[in-house]
Amino acid sequence: MSKEITSRAQDYSQWYNDLVIKGSLADHSAVRGCMVIKPYGYSLWENMRDVLDKMFKDTGHVNAYFPLFVPKSLFEAEEKNAEGFAKECAIVTHYRLKADPNAKGKLMVDPEAKLEEELVIRPTSEAVIWNTYRDWIQSYRDLPLLINQWANVVRWEMRTRLFLRTAEFLWQEGHTAHATKEEAIEETVKMLHVYADFVENYMALPVIKGVKSPNERFAGAEDTYCIEALMQDGKALQAGTSHFLGQNFAKAFNVKFSNKENQLDYVWATSWGVSTRLIGALVMAHSDDEGLVLPPRLAPLQVVIVPIYKGDEQKQLIDAKAAEIIANLKNLGVRVKYDDNDNARPGWKFAEYEMKGVPVRLALGARDLEKNVVEVARRDTREKQTVGLDGIAQYVDGLLLDIQHSMFHKAKTFRDAHVTEANSWDEFVKLLDEKGGFISAHWDGTPETEEEIKDKSKATIRCIPLDNPQEQGVCILTGKPSTQRVLFARAY
Amino acid sequence: MSKEITSRAQDYSQWYNDLVIKGSLADHSAVRGCMVIKPYGYSLWENMRDVLDKMFKDTGHVNAYFPLFVPKSLFEAEEKNAEGFAKECAIVTHYRLKADPNAKGKLMVDPEAKLEEELVIRPTSEAVIWNTYRDWIQSYRDLPLLINQWANVVRWEMRTRLFLRTAEFLWQEGHTAHATKEEAIEETVKMLHVYADFVENYMALPVIKGVKSPNERFAGAEDTYCIEALMQDGKALQAGTSHFLGQNFAKAFNVKFSNKENQLDYVWATSWGVSTRLIGALVMAHSDDEGLVLPPRLAPLQVVIVPIYKGDEQKQLIDAKAAEIIANLKNLGVRVKYDDNDNARPGWKFAEYEMKGVPVRLALGARDLEKNVVEVARRDTREKQTVGLDGIAQYVDGLLLDIQHSMFHKAKTFRDAHVTEANSWDEFVKLLDEKGGFISAHWDGTPETEEEIKDKSKATIRCIPLDNPQEQGVCILTGKPSTQRVLFARAY
Repeated sequence: MSKEITSRAQDYSQWYNDLVIKGSLADHSAVRGCMVIKPYGYSLWENMRDVLDKMFKDTGHVNAYFPLFVPKSLFEAEEKNAEGFAKECAIVTHYRLKADPNAKGKLMVDPEAKLEEELVIRPTSEAVIWNTYRDWIQSYRDLPLLINQWANVVRWEMRTRLFLRTAEFLWQEGHTAHATKEEAIEETVKMLHVYADFVENYMALPVIKGVKSPNERFAGAEDTYCIEALMQDGKALQAGTSHFLGQNFAKAFNVKFSNKENQLDYVWATSWGVSTRLIGALVMAHSDDEGLVLPPRLAPLQVVIVPIYKGDEQKQLIDAKAAEIIANLKNLGVRVKYDDNDNARPGWKFAEYEMKGVPVRLALGARDLEKNVVEVARRDTREKQTVGLDGIAQYVDGLLLDIQHSMFHKAKTFRDAHVTEANSWDEFVKLLDEKGGFISAHWDGTPETEEEIKDKSKATIRCIPLDNPQEQGVCILTGKPSTQRVLFARAY
Repeated sequence: MSKEITSRAQDYSQWYNDLVIKGSLADHSAVRGCMVIKPYGYSLWENMRDVLDKMFKDTGHVNAYFPLFVPKSLFEAEEKNAEGFAKECAIVTHYRLKADPNAKGKLMVDPEAKLEEELVIRPTSEAVIWNTYRDWIQSYRDLPLLINQWANVVRWEMRTRLFLRTAEFLWQEGHTAHATKEEAIEETVKMLHVYADFVENYMALPVIKGVKSPNERFAGAEDTYCIEALMQDGKALQAGTSHFLGQNFAKAFNVKFSNKENQLDYVWATSWGVSTRLIGALVMAHSDDEGLVLPPRLAPLQVVIVPIYKGDEQKQLIDAKAAEIIANLKNLGVRVKYDDNDNARPGWKFAEYEMKGVPVRLALGARDLEKNVVEVARRDTREKQTVGLDGIAQYVDGLLLDIQHSMFHKAKTFRDAHVTEANSWDEFVKLLDEKGGFISAHWDGTPETEEEIKDKSKATIRCIPLDNPQEQGVCILTGKPSTQRVLFARAY
């Protein structure tokens, strides 16, 4: 295991990339902007997906699957949505290859197999789903319709980064249909809270819940709710969004229902999604210069036991003790591995599991056994302790919970220390450059000012927090009156 | 619930289509050849996927995710594979849409956003995966590599049918890499047995395990192993395949490893897959003219309880008893629903759950309660019985197991009665036309004869069964000598 990763201080961006690759989460692929999610990274995604999937089902949602392809005529039906995604669409135009007459062994697109209508690879599925909902919804009795989909989507990004921004990514997209505006807004907010619950309690990452400014809204939404997290370099990262879509898609796809008064009305919609981008957030928020630091609730492997021995006799004693500990840990539902591979030395293994962010490591030696103790190392603080072997499984189980809470606490302390008020333009720019984080500042509420602030400072409005206190003030850029502060940050 | 489905006798093909749509499994979509998998159908797929995923993990496999896109130059690297799939590929040629200057509100493909190299939507992932394996495999210590992927794939089929043949479908594809030929063949056969175990013990569908003739091999494989099932109309359906790929992909993508003797050699490969097509097999094999018949181990809903009452007083008594039964059933791990929706009458509900293939229905009436009994109806045989309420949960749990076994037994009896020997061409054709099923017949072993038999009879060699008895005979078409019978059938 090569420990040579760039340090955060040296080059934060390269550090991130090194971690993703050397931590075995993902690799670049031969396809521009697309990545390969490696088994270790995919196992992390499976854990995240399983928790989220249960949360969605517990809140009454069911899964379904809609086509990958969106015919161009459907794609363009909701104009704002189409306009928002048109510039980054992969488009299928042909359905056959044939032998290239000019190059032996090569194939070429068969010009005779041109599609009558081009197909857009879904960048998001509102169009194809609302075109289907028209057939599924006739009466208020068919509502609400609470459907989620786990799928791959494609957005042709020019600058890509592993997990954070890839041309193809995995996500879930919820698409719900409601009889009233109030109910749709309630659903939008409910799912925002589900996301916040997941990111805080499983990913150990505190978030700020808020609403996007009009400039930052999802294309086709009336309102976009979001959760914003803070990375160690002081940049923000949008961790999930939940959109109130109004009747925009119902109108574009003519989805009407007869209400209890037997009158026809357009259906109200929401959509909400999180993606493999969350893995990028997880890595950036918690890891250190030794490698990944993963929260126990999501770590593919929570505990690794490394035997330290000379000769078969010692090995057998340690094997027996390890088997006992493992059985007890598994009984408690802990994901544990015994690494007795004798091709690698303990020090090499320690470094490898540090790189992979395994929360707890037990080093079990012959002398420890004699003393009935074991060395316990926690990944987050890198502290080591000698602990008695009696009741060690319960101890480790408790330690995992402690690590989970401690990681959240550390991230929250950092985040809280990086929400700063700015009351002038100079202060704003200075804070952005020297400290980073969220800057709470007055803004005159116009899209033009927001755009100008972005152009001048590279900071965007991350959100207007929910239940934002109202306060008289003046816009940091224009000096015009403002009634509330909003949160700015430079962001991923 | 409209009970109007076409009967099997009237039109088997239409019956199938009616079942899929009225049983709420899937719908046609606006995209040619693509379907929407509805929540009920997707829940069935989730159950199938979860069982298979556990089987794969229990046999040492891990999941990963590879890109949807295959650059044309990678796609064409393994020539036979490329040739086999070239005719049915969806191809991405552009990455942007723009406003159409000649049609307000419409978009058009931006001719300036043409890809330098076309991207094939994966019809299968050997190319993109083996191109990646080259970086992951250096030494025998990196082997075996046992990776599976759950993904969507696209094969541009001209004639599509819900689940059985769709342009896009969901599947899993295992791709393993080995140091020796023997180990790769062992893996190929092992996964065939895993598939057979799943289809027989969960789908309640008996299969014949065998090897494909060269004409029917997967493009790029040295040997294709398969499991073949029989549908109620006497046609066969390939339910899963496992391919020994030899060193073909390793050579095409230059994937070498240094073996224990420190010599470089090409890596040996397997791949294996099953898809949402299995849902089609499940429907066709077991269902009847009243609707779906689902095996309990996979049914999204195993038991439904329908209350039969007049007035609130009766309802409350029944509610209380139902709650008790449901708690006991859930304790036993049974998936149960209480349908007390008062918008529909019991008879309507009975028909609906018959259509959806729920294995067991309990009808709980006020008079039943007085007598401490309940009416239990099983979906497979449509038998009804009055059963005492004491210990009803255990009774139902046992009944579910009985239904599972009984469905398998029924399908096996039917299948066994439809494996028939033919010793002449006339007999062969007569059997195909009048009885269907698998015809066991001698064949001279040449691809030409196989092709001619197919042209003349529409029957293909489904497989050469594993451990096939050797027997002297003459080919039914050419009269040339043969050493074994093989299984022919008309197939989906």
